[in-house]
Amino acid sequence: MSTEIPIGTYLFTRLKQVGVEHIFGVPGDFNLKLLDHVYNVPGLKWIGTCNELNGTYACDGYSRESGKIGVMVTTFGVGELSALNGVSGAFAENVPVIHIVGQSPRFAQQNNVLLHHSPAPHGLKPNDHTAYEKASEPLCCVTEKLWDPETAADQIDNLITQVTLLKEPGTLFVPADMCNLMVSTKNFATPIAPEFPVHPDTDVVADAIIDALSKAKRPVVLNDLFATRFNMRERTHKILEATGAYGYVTFLGRSSINENHPQFGGVYNGHVSFPGVVDEVENKSDLVLNIGAHVSDFNTGGMSRQIPYEKTIIVHAFYASVFGKNYDGVYFGHVLDRVLERLPTTYKAQVDASKPLIKVPNPELKGAITQAALPFVISKFLVPGDTLIAETGTYQYGSRGTVIPQDSLYFAQYYYSSIGFALPAAFGAAIGKTLTSNPYKRVHLVEGDGSAMMTIQEVASMVRFNLPITIFLINNDGYSIERCIWGPYQGYNDIPPNWKWRQLFETFGAKEGQCETYKAETLEELVALSENKEFRESSKPQLVEIMMDKYDYPPVLRQSTVIGAANNAYQVAQWSQLNGLK
Amino acid sequence: MSTEIPIGTYLFTRLKQVGVEHIFGVPGDFNLKLLDHVYNVPGLKWIGTCNELNGTYACDGYSRESGKIGVMVTTFGVGELSALNGVSGAFAENVPVIHIVGQSPRFAQQNNVLLHHSPAPHGLKPNDHTAYEKASEPLCCVTEKLWDPETAADQIDNLITQVTLLKEPGTLFVPADMCNLMVSTKNFATPIAPEFPVHPDTDVVADAIIDALSKAKRPVVLNDLFATRFNMRERTHKILEATGAYGYVTFLGRSSINENHPQFGGVYNGHVSFPGVVDEVENKSDLVLNIGAHVSDFNTGGMSRQIPYEKTIIVHAFYASVFGKNYDGVYFGHVLDRVLERLPTTYKAQVDASKPLIKVPNPELKGAITQAALPFVISKFLVPGDTLIAETGTYQYGSRGTVIPQDSLYFAQYYYSSIGFALPAAFGAAIGKTLTSNPYKRVHLVEGDGSAMMTIQEVASMVRFNLPITIFLINNDGYSIERCIWGPYQGYNDIPPNWKWRQLFETFGAKEGQCETYKAETLEELVALSENKEFRESSKPQLVEIMMDKYDYPPVLRQSTVIGAANNAYQVAQWSQLNGLK
Repeated sequence: MSTEIPIGTYLFTRLKQVGVEHIFGVPGDFNLKLLDHVYNVPGLKWIGTCNELNGTYACDGYSRESGKIGVMVTTFGVGELSALNGVSGAFAENVPVIHIVGQSPRFAQQNNVLLHHSPAPHGLKPNDHTAYEKASEPLCCVTEKLWDPETAADQIDNLITQVTLLKEPGTLFVPADMCNLMVSTKNFATPIAPEFPVHPDTDVVADAIIDALSKAKRPVVLNDLFATRFNMRERTHKILEATGAYGYVTFLGRSSINENHPQFGGVYNGHVSFPGVVDEVENKSDLVLNIGAHVSDFNTGGMSRQIPYEKTIIVHAFYASVFGKNYDGVYFGHVLDRVLERLPTTYKAQVDASKPLIKVPNPELKGAITQAALPFVISKFLVPGDTLIAETGTYQYGSRGTVIPQDSLYFAQYYYSSIGFALPAAFGAAIGKTLTSNPYKRVHLVEGDGSAMMTIQEVASMVRFNLPITIFLINNDGYSIERCIWGPYQGYNDIPPNWKWRQLFETFGAKEGQCETYKAETLEELVALSENKEFRESSKPQLVEIMMDKYDYPPVLRQSTVIGAANNAYQVAQWSQLNGLK
Repeated sequence: MSTEIPIGTYLFTRLKQVGVEHIFGVPGDFNLKLLDHVYNVPGLKWIGTCNELNGTYACDGYSRESGKIGVMVTTFGVGELSALNGVSGAFAENVPVIHIVGQSPRFAQQNNVLLHHSPAPHGLKPNDHTAYEKASEPLCCVTEKLWDPETAADQIDNLITQVTLLKEPGTLFVPADMCNLMVSTKNFATPIAPEFPVHPDTDVVADAIIDALSKAKRPVVLNDLFATRFNMRERTHKILEATGAYGYVTFLGRSSINENHPQFGGVYNGHVSFPGVVDEVENKSDLVLNIGAHVSDFNTGGMSRQIPYEKTIIVHAFYASVFGKNYDGVYFGHVLDRVLERLPTTYKAQVDASKPLIKVPNPELKGAITQAALPFVISKFLVPGDTLIAETGTYQYGSRGTVIPQDSLYFAQYYYSSIGFALPAAFGAAIGKTLTSNPYKRVHLVEGDGSAMMTIQEVASMVRFNLPITIFLINNDGYSIERCIWGPYQGYNDIPPNWKWRQLFETFGAKEGQCETYKAETLEELVALSENKEFRESSKPQLVEIMMDKYDYPPVLRQSTVIGAANNAYQVAQWSQLNGLK
């Protein structure tokens, strides 16, 4: 039996039905009445963020952590545009985020009324309220604009369906006068639970994999971004166990294989991987099953990945590629399920299961804190179920030396690389963790001072919601990642100096004893802190200020940069010549 | 004699030639080599901001203060999109800002390389590096993308020309491999100093004004946004003096008439103006010369402006309108010059020059600090040459009670209304003030806690550059402007509580004694502070925390909101009916 409810209530009820329990956003007068409906849906909570960009970053972290959609509400123009970079990052790295924009009312749009927040007129030329929509369109897999209550419910369902399926952002435009109009609840009879259609080529790809595995003497599995995002973890473990192959991950593929698994090989990052990795993945292997490939620059050691397509099978959310032959629209979940159903156990015996010869450094944890040693200390702070988030910065590249424990999530924006992302994402992840099986485990954030400053106000939200987040704040006087790339001594890589990082919680509203702060100048101090019971077992927001040298860069970043720069120079020269340009 | 220089040096030299002395921005690896050229141009300084949105806000403030172009440099995607809302605000309120984006190199764009920061591919569909450009296009008057060194110099010149002329933002896309290619300096022989062409209808409009003035018994001049931005101040004063008319300003037109001028009438804000204003402007007048009109909602008291077009002549940067007849492309500078040349002095005698009967309240400055009284206290802090900036918030609406001294600038985003704008804009204005005749005068910023938190990190830049900025921080527990509009008790209008505002300078790097902070809970305390010699004469960054009630709103805002809401409800009903919708 259907009834009628307001569009706003319909929208938030549908989101709750697909597992969303938190709505992030910033109020603005074109969304206020819409926001009232958040409180009409039992179990849904409003999470105000300090600004809109931080809010979309938080939604991204919320989604990566919980697997649910991150939902951000902004207001027309001013909030909407501020949020775009966060939406774009979610698009670049396939994170399901829904951006809901409370727009000017329909009459104002239709009549080009000069309402505040609306775009500029130009003299006698009327202003165009739809200008901002054009900015969102290239950054989403789907946009819907509610205009007619007759179609609103279906449009909302379509948006949630596309975002759920593709794990890409969608934007919903809601004119301010729409949210209280009534729509039928008849759609509620059909849950939103989209699945990829089984493509006719699924068996062709699965058979090719089985055939290739049966012939391979030394196959490897290499997991990447899409394996993480589409949760191919369990299937990957089964493939490893059925074949005896070793499994590697790229930077973006981390957390898609349990790093304590006996067949976990290590982090493959092209030719700047730890010694032995390239030899195993590129040279000794005779088959690379690449699950969810994302062949982007920093993810491949500055484009130094050299895996010949003749021995590579890629399976992916949106396509497959068998030794260079592409199959558009084949979904890897279906392929891997069929492989697992049909894979004879005899294949296992054919695989050489000798331990790969990966040489992971084992730096002595003494003296000044270096980029080379930091990742190995961070490992000591992590326990199963914890989350680790790295900012786009120096540590992110060194982090392959950090071992991610069982049932733990690690992420960083290795592709989109928006500096400032990680701090609000950590806030969002801590909120998202309440939806997981590890709700009380800690979120660890490692980031530098240059990045932290960009989105620092969200520390106030960590305090407000009293979340178990530890910030490892690298105090190294500016953008060291940029210094490593270019202009180490140029003024543009400096930031406002002398921040009192350990005073932040208090300045942003912490009561006495609510949060704790620490400072470390040596590796010994960090090791001691990692063994400090009070620190380890705390449920408070914590901050550890880590003093480091501004010109110290992780070895892997230096190498990637050199390789990347060489590639660029070569390609610029070649391309310019081809195109008859200087 | 021409020679060749790198494109980057060409660009920054051209900007220096039109009076720019500061380049704002955030470094990113696709702009680093471009930024090297900032240091190649004598007299140009790099001003790093804490993030990109703050940077464009700062550029906006820099330009409003100095009259020069605000220049912001960002990097591909991640920085570029974060800056958009600031660019859009400059577009909405006609502020000349140039946004320079360091893009991925040409070969990467051409070949859809999966470089970090670039947009998402979708399965086998390649990624499109130009996606972000589409987001900027609707928010600028001009975009140029450098691709071929042969045309680069002319493209740069065109961009600067359009922005200078129209006072609207422009965006320049510079692929990373372009900045060191060489271009000729031959264009340097021609300075960039564009002027509007004199439109053939200029005399028609000027004659109509002279004719109308000669017949009018009680004309008024009403200045608005474009009068401020295109600096019609001197011309306006001459018109007032030649005619004996009283001059009024809208919110957006403030600073375009000296408020100590004997013929300054007051602030006209539709039917929520101070008593007497409506009667003078709308009723008693028989001619309204409206210079630079911007008939937007908050600027007209919630669309309560009721000036019949039959007695209105609008002159504007881009058009004129004489009693309802439009003249597209007629520039008001030309019109007003002709009017002033030809206006017989005898007209003056025909004007009734009796003092308009405006009743400005004179609240007793005692007891708790109220929104109704605050504007009158703020007046006491201002001296000639100071700048006053209000955030989009409660004080902004009350600020008509604040008298702007001679040679002082006052601005706020009454149209675009992006909360968070004012704090970085104040930073930018303080930098821009170094280019003015009042370089050592103070910038006063009045804003609430909800807005301050959105862009708070730019306080670190105020400290870093040790600028004479006073922040009047209204501590009233959240978004009171939104509470006034809707949902006063809803959780979405709350913010993280208990910020220690007076600790901010220190947390963000101030040395002991470098900055000063104060707290005021009563009007007496504020008045005393305004008379405190040390405070008045300080050249330090200062912050005054003003404790106010969260449910106290300026009377004008309450009235505007009521009128605006009534208009909206009426228009929604009417429009929906017209369009056959519910």
